[in-house]
Amino acid sequence: MNALECIRIKRDGGTLPSQDLRDLVLAYTRGEVPDYQISAFLMAAFLNGMADSETETLVDAMLRSGEVLDLSAIPGAKVDKHSTGGVGDKISLILAPLVACLGVNVPMISGRGLGHSGGTLDKLESIPGFRTDLTLDRMKAQLADLKVAMIGQTAEIAPADKKLYALRDVTATVEFIPFIAASIMSKKLAEGLDGLVLDVKVGAGAFMKTPETARELAEALVIVGERRGCRTVALMTAMDEPLGNAVGNWLEVAESLDVLNGEGPDDVRELSCVLAGEMLAMGGAASSPEKGAEMAAEALYDGRAMACFRRLVAAQGGDLRSLDDPWSRPGLEVRAEIAAPAAGIVQSIDGFRLGVACVQMGAGRAQKEDDVDAFAGLTLNKKVGDPVGEGETLARLHGSDPSRVAEQTREVEAAFGIGSAAPEPGTLIRGRFAEGGWTGT
Amino acid sequence: MNALECIRIKRDGGTLPSQDLRDLVLAYTRGEVPDYQISAFLMAAFLNGMADSETETLVDAMLRSGEVLDLSAIPGAKVDKHSTGGVGDKISLILAPLVACLGVNVPMISGRGLGHSGGTLDKLESIPGFRTDLTLDRMKAQLADLKVAMIGQTAEIAPADKKLYALRDVTATVEFIPFIAASIMSKKLAEGLDGLVLDVKVGAGAFMKTPETARELAEALVIVGERRGCRTVALMTAMDEPLGNAVGNWLEVAESLDVLNGEGPDDVRELSCVLAGEMLAMGGAASSPEKGAEMAAEALYDGRAMACFRRLVAAQGGDLRSLDDPWSRPGLEVRAEIAAPAAGIVQSIDGFRLGVACVQMGAGRAQKEDDVDAFAGLTLNKKVGDPVGEGETLARLHGSDPSRVAEQTREVEAAFGIGSAAPEPGTLIRGRFAEGGWTGT
Repeated sequence: MNALECIRIKRDGGTLPSQDLRDLVLAYTRGEVPDYQISAFLMAAFLNGMADSETETLVDAMLRSGEVLDLSAIPGAKVDKHSTGGVGDKISLILAPLVACLGVNVPMISGRGLGHSGGTLDKLESIPGFRTDLTLDRMKAQLADLKVAMIGQTAEIAPADKKLYALRDVTATVEFIPFIAASIMSKKLAEGLDGLVLDVKVGAGAFMKTPETARELAEALVIVGERRGCRTVALMTAMDEPLGNAVGNWLEVAESLDVLNGEGPDDVRELSCVLAGEMLAMGGAASSPEKGAEMAAEALYDGRAMACFRRLVAAQGGDLRSLDDPWSRPGLEVRAEIAAPAAGIVQSIDGFRLGVACVQMGAGRAQKEDDVDAFAGLTLNKKVGDPVGEGETLARLHGSDPSRVAEQTREVEAAFGIGSAAPEPGTLIRGRFAEGGWTGT
Repeated sequence: MNALECIRIKRDGGTLPSQDLRDLVLAYTRGEVPDYQISAFLMAAFLNGMADSETETLVDAMLRSGEVLDLSAIPGAKVDKHSTGGVGDKISLILAPLVACLGVNVPMISGRGLGHSGGTLDKLESIPGFRTDLTLDRMKAQLADLKVAMIGQTAEIAPADKKLYALRDVTATVEFIPFIAASIMSKKLAEGLDGLVLDVKVGAGAFMKTPETARELAEALVIVGERRGCRTVALMTAMDEPLGNAVGNWLEVAESLDVLNGEGPDDVRELSCVLAGEMLAMGGAASSPEKGAEMAAEALYDGRAMACFRRLVAAQGGDLRSLDDPWSRPGLEVRAEIAAPAAGIVQSIDGFRLGVACVQMGAGRAQKEDDVDAFAGLTLNKKVGDPVGEGETLARLHGSDPSRVAEQTREVEAAFGIGSAAPEPGTLIRGRFAEGGWTGT
């Protein structure tokens, strides 16, 4: 493998021999090829495209750059979900115990908040004492015991992805579907899964703003998964206004607890059940995704999912008492209320703008090293389609630093569009892609 | 200026604001922008193209990254020539004293051998004692005195080019006309010239293999020069077989001395006179390029050019005695003779192949740090169109290391194509591009 020759081939629109691409990725991970050659390669691939075979090779090399979990000693199917990221997306917190309590293993490895969207790890760590840094051995032991573990990416999993992602971030080569697909799938496939459900978000609050790009990503992800023998299904789901009413780390834990109590917002509950249905069908615990969704709704209603979540929290060091009355936890005072400037019907809520405002309040990071504030965020009193009177509360803002919260009130107010017409009701699930093609679009 | 935003604009096919491109180049030169961002930028520009305004800005930023010579204290026009590089191209050695002896200043800054082609500096340094590392102050003093100085690129001239060229070389972004034009013109325009003649080589022994790419480069170079107020003309000239009969450092000095004595190969003398004619016309010493070429032929014939060359060599520390019988200089023994494998007419001589063979014999560098051998190289006994008998000598090989020479005999033989038909006679000057457009093509 000659790095310069690899760059030249991509520059000239050619397809790299598999072995060369694999060697290039592994040599880069070992520090034997400099950043400046890889960044030229990334840009050439970004502009000239990658063949499906190259994407597959890239995934394979990235996942083999580190440890690949062997979960064969644990009986039963292992299934996970990945979301491409949105605002108010707390589904993983509900989904992992919900699927596990119905008999399918969920070895979930999650990330931190990225850009305007939150991260499952940050949410879990807002539970006092909760540890996400389990070793892979301890994770396996817990999985064998509880059928569920939720941890952060370790240095052993796909180190090539970590290095490539950091370089893409500073060379304007992030927004390229083969790279996005390789980054997601190399980490997920390293979990040693039998099945994977992908929640590809589309809309103003998502990374994929248009149905076209979301569809393209969904297809790339499923093709990569299936070719590697992992049953893979992608749902394309709405991410215009935030999912549910809560945005922020602890606020989303609190809303998840509501759903695990059989309550909470309809959209969060519906999406949790639909995704759980897919995972249960994949894992052989349900005869179909639809049947699985019904089973999931029951397990939310009768407390089995909540019991599993509490076992999970206890096993990973979290303080169970904090879960009992989550909306009254000290620190969660309301710092500001956003009043409607005029009466009307809520036409739109800009999820991206709210996501950025929450990051500014402290719910996310401006720099990788920043701490996040467990309490920063907001709750929506009104969602799209709701009527609102002049001066009525649209949202409540929270956060440990009142001045950071105060700075965002204008942004939050500006995220609401209020008008006189009743908006078209949107659908939550916008399509499903599996090996057979698209359905439900 | 935000480097990431600059990359994004080029990635998306946009045109960079001048100030941002200028700031990017200067920040990179100061080490404030990392290689990996610039290499992504270079690849994006390579694949998406550069607007003429961007090429101009790039040239301007690169030349302003270092010192720009102020030769205004020296009376008279300052004119130089640049060749894009070929095999056996010793024209600069003849041209600089030839133009200077006719009254026009030639402040020539040259490079070393690159790839398969030789470099003027390496040739000059094969003269015992000759120094090419004059300071800019000493160069100016010599120019005022002799109207000619021939030096190497100093660290003060266009340091951005040095850094960018090194990066392009390892990221497959060399062969891109706006970058090539910017690299050439930033160095030449930093000489503070009134006029510049470009010898754009085309053919198998040149970097530009096709007339189309050579024309494109010629046009880019002239446009950049003229826009900056430097009178610029480009000649497109043949580089299939080597120029003249000698290839190698001292061998080319010896052939240049023949031409300065009013003798030597016709093609070398013709090209020297044509280029000198352009420079003399630009410098106001001749009423037209044609008239200038006639003046140059006389100055070669009557010894004025040779006298000027000897003054130049003496001023820069060279040993004049070495110039007296150059073909008999100790060390220049013939190491091998290449015999024609069959009788016929020489159809073609592959200049690129011969150039590479000479580098291998020691005339050039495989690595930047390598020393060059003054004596390595070859002389052609036959050129394209010459009849040859079986066993007759085609070329003689020289070099300090007999084993390195012996390794190349097969390559040199293989560079000759011998057949029965008389080849079409080629023209040396293939076209001339100036502000008014192309003539003579």
